[in-house]
Amino acid sequence: MSTRLGELVERLGGQLVGNPDIEVSSIAPLDVANASNITFLSNPKFRTKAAQTAAAALILSPADDEVIGASYPGARIVTANPYAYFARAAQYFEQRKRVRPAPGTHATASVDPTAQIASTAIIGPHVTIEADVVIADGVQIDAGCVIGRGARIGANTRLYPRVVFLDACEIGENGIIYPGAVIGSDGFGLANDGGVWVKIPQTGRVMIGNDVQIGANTTVDRGALVDTVIGDGVKLDNQIQIGHNCRVGDHTAMAGCVGVGGSSIIGKHCTLGGAVGVAGHLTITDNVHITAASNVSRSINEPGHYAGSYPLAKHEDWQKTAAVTRNLDSLRERVRELEKTIKTLTKEEPS
Amino acid sequence: MSTRLGELVERLGGQLVGNPDIEVSSIAPLDVANASNITFLSNPKFRTKAAQTAAAALILSPADDEVIGASYPGARIVTANPYAYFARAAQYFEQRKRVRPAPGTHATASVDPTAQIASTAIIGPHVTIEADVVIADGVQIDAGCVIGRGARIGANTRLYPRVVFLDACEIGENGIIYPGAVIGSDGFGLANDGGVWVKIPQTGRVMIGNDVQIGANTTVDRGALVDTVIGDGVKLDNQIQIGHNCRVGDHTAMAGCVGVGGSSIIGKHCTLGGAVGVAGHLTITDNVHITAASNVSRSINEPGHYAGSYPLAKHEDWQKTAAVTRNLDSLRERVRELEKTIKTLTKEEPS
Amino acid sequence: MSTRLGELVERLGGQLVGNPDIEVSSIAPLDVANASNITFLSNPKFRTKAAQTAAAALILSPADDEVIGASYPGARIVTANPYAYFARAAQYFEQRKRVRPAPGTHATASVDPTAQIASTAIIGPHVTIEADVVIADGVQIDAGCVIGRGARIGANTRLYPRVVFLDACEIGENGIIYPGAVIGSDGFGLANDGGVWVKIPQTGRVMIGNDVQIGANTTVDRGALVDTVIGDGVKLDNQIQIGHNCRVGDHTAMAGCVGVGGSSIIGKHCTLGGAVGVAGHLTITDNVHITAASNVSRSINEPGHYAGSYPLAKHEDWQKTAAVTRNLDSLRERVRELEKTIKTLTKEEPS
Repeated sequence: MSTRLGELVERLGGQLVGNPDIEVSSIAPLDVANASNITFLSNPKFRTKAAQTAAAALILSPADDEVIGASYPGARIVTANPYAYFARAAQYFEQRKRVRPAPGTHATASVDPTAQIASTAIIGPHVTIEADVVIADGVQIDAGCVIGRGARIGANTRLYPRVVFLDACEIGENGIIYPGAVIGSDGFGLANDGGVWVKIPQTGRVMIGNDVQIGANTTVDRGALVDTVIGDGVKLDNQIQIGHNCRVGDHTAMAGCVGVGGSSIIGKHCTLGGAVGVAGHLTITDNVHITAASNVSRSINEPGHYAGSYPLAKHEDWQKTAAVTRNLDSLRERVRELEKTIKTLTKEEPS
Repeated sequence: MSTRLGELVERLGGQLVGNPDIEVSSIAPLDVANASNITFLSNPKFRTKAAQTAAAALILSPADDEVIGASYPGARIVTANPYAYFARAAQYFEQRKRVRPAPGTHATASVDPTAQIASTAIIGPHVTIEADVVIADGVQIDAGCVIGRGARIGANTRLYPRVVFLDACEIGENGIIYPGAVIGSDGFGLANDGGVWVKIPQTGRVMIGNDVQIGANTTVDRGALVDTVIGDGVKLDNQIQIGHNCRVGDHTAMAGCVGVGGSSIIGKHCTLGGAVGVAGHLTITDNVHITAASNVSRSINEPGHYAGSYPLAKHEDWQKTAAVTRNLDSLRERVRELEKTIKTLTKEEPS
Repeated sequence: MSTRLGELVERLGGQLVGNPDIEVSSIAPLDVANASNITFLSNPKFRTKAAQTAAAALILSPADDEVIGASYPGARIVTANPYAYFARAAQYFEQRKRVRPAPGTHATASVDPTAQIASTAIIGPHVTIEADVVIADGVQIDAGCVIGRGARIGANTRLYPRVVFLDACEIGENGIIYPGAVIGSDGFGLANDGGVWVKIPQTGRVMIGNDVQIGANTTVDRGALVDTVIGDGVKLDNQIQIGHNCRVGDHTAMAGCVGVGGSSIIGKHCTLGGAVGVAGHLTITDNVHITAASNVSRSINEPGHYAGSYPLAKHEDWQKTAAVTRNLDSLRERVRELEKTIKTLTKEEPS
């Protein structure tokens, strides 16, 4: 199932330098690529390697092309962002190979008669679809998923096996939800009454935009009185927890194990590294980037890179630094005392 | 489906000031409430807003009522804890709206003939119920749940879709377990034998009290030789891990992503913020409150508020503070040296 | 279902001192054991308790046997590693009690006709098995599991309920995967193109060795271009996230809530405490042990014990130390200034 370079460029753009009739069948890294592969150069430090690759074709930037274009014997696709081009080319090859079940509802699925399911949708084994669900064209719902009453799944979105997507929640087009994710579980809303917790019903929904990706076993809670909102193009990795009433801005990405407390608002184009924690009721502006394992306990109003995690050390060294950390306040006091004494001493000195 | 204020007060208590025949149909926040809503004031700083709300009725405390009661034209319900009253009123409205499937076992469920299932229970699609399970009155087991051999589910408890509740574990009455939670998986018990891990069978159970709430994708491991115990009224948020042999005291609440190591005992009425970690084999006394993202590595014998997390900073500032943190022990040494030198100097000074 | 001590020793080794015809039916801790139990002493500080146990037999080390052997009236099994012996004995008792379903495929399972399933395998209710799956002898696949196209499950491996094991992934023999785990979901591979994320297809697999244990709701992502590899004897607790392309060395164990970023390589015989975070693209050598709640942001080339977490304190004390931590760089500057001044002062002093 090979593809002509000419066809690839027609679909994905870029400037082809070389024979459009050369055929490639997949993508491979610079050093393992062979004559049936296309490869890519996204980091200038690999220019020498790229010039020597055995691939039939090379995706590279104009700047890299100027330096090594002449010395590479194969075909070149010149494009501003070779890494993104690689991603799109890989998608193209992958979609051609993908085995997609035939449209229709598996015999073992349990579907409420009031659900509206597009004829082009695929509903897998042991799926449960409750009343008034709306499933658009090209949707794929894999084995064991449960779609709650009145939920809506937009065109070409795929739910991997065992996703739970609860009542009245919605996701837009071209989304992907990975196995075990739970969308629309109740938020953690409780009132304390003399030491006993009283549950606050969670009557909001989860509203998810287009082109959103939600990782395996990630959970996004429904809102209490308002909706939890996940913007267009948001990418959430595995094991993430998003609390009720949160709003995550368009094209923000979060790595695995992030936790976001309830009612926090995160801007657009942010990135949160793995296991970052965000307390509840905070606002993080657009274009904020937070290093893995940091804890955000105040709002962030200025774009930029933030971090905060205790440095790793040999266990015995950490024990010493932790002991000092525990008494940092007194260490500061001692420095203050020293400063005062020195001030007195230096004043006493004759000039 | 509106309700007379008189009926609400009859059910939930509180002192009604105003016409008991006024009808309300739902709860809304102060600023969006209209004439069909009841609203609530739980924080005195919103008194002005409350006095101006368009809601038909206002829930408030005696203290707030003294200040704004006269200036608010609608009906008032005066109660000691308006926030808890709001929670109960919201529950009341929500229960009236809730669509509950008819009692009975769905045709696609797989139920062992030895299981005892109350006639008022609801067993959803694709549920698996193994031998000797006991399911009490009013229980709702949603799609795709798996209930292991000999487990017991108390009256009016609900298991959301895809909960796994393993062999011999028990939960009391009025509980809620959210989607994807796993109760009674084996604890992480291993003996090391010359570098190779040997599994220790986990023969205890998970015993859960009444009125317990367990969040989506949370895991509670069964005990090794004894049981893991979750007390009455405990509320666990999503993505929490409770290790084997733990005991969590009554009415303790934990926010998302908390991890509790094996054999730790947590007291009553504690709160653990998001992503708090508790090491194994610790004891935490009653009424301990731990701020999000803190790590508990020693037992806590005194009630109170605890915290411990590295402060967030601009990335370049954090790099500097982290570098100093890494060498805190030597910084303390330098301060000690200075103190010694100063002591010598000041002694040498003529009085 | 009791067992002669003679038979136990024949199966598990150790030197029996006492009557081989004594029968025991289970294991119990030192202080609760009775005449039908065998017990064990793995920590010398419990020698006195061990000498007084009511158990019919005691597992202990040669060193402990020398001290208390004579004073304990029951039978003894002397072995180099009593804790590992306890684990194996407990396994023996547990396997005899275990209720195992009959081999065969449950009527409600959905199995592709091209799947190859050994006649001794057990396939539970509501399981989905896709095309070209290979399931070896003695495998048990519990209710609600989903096995993707072309996956392979080695002999005697058990998948607990609701495991998702995706396309082309493989696990060896004698493995255990606990409920809700997801193996082979896509790695978090994205290219940024002008602020918009473009998905990079994940075409690698997850390859898991023999004797591996994977905890409840743990996720292991498939590789991007290469495979994610989990070595023999690896033990992963619950709620763990392993990113794409990672390699975890043989006999490494990770406690709950650990997160490992993509493309990191972890050596053999390592232990990671609960909630440890490992950034992506790092290498950790063999025999590294990391304390719970630490964050690994650089590679570790030297075996040993490592740690790094902020110490817990009373909330008001933490506020003070955190404030100093935030300004550690300026504190160091002040110490430097003091050192300079002192140097000047002491130089000025007459010798």
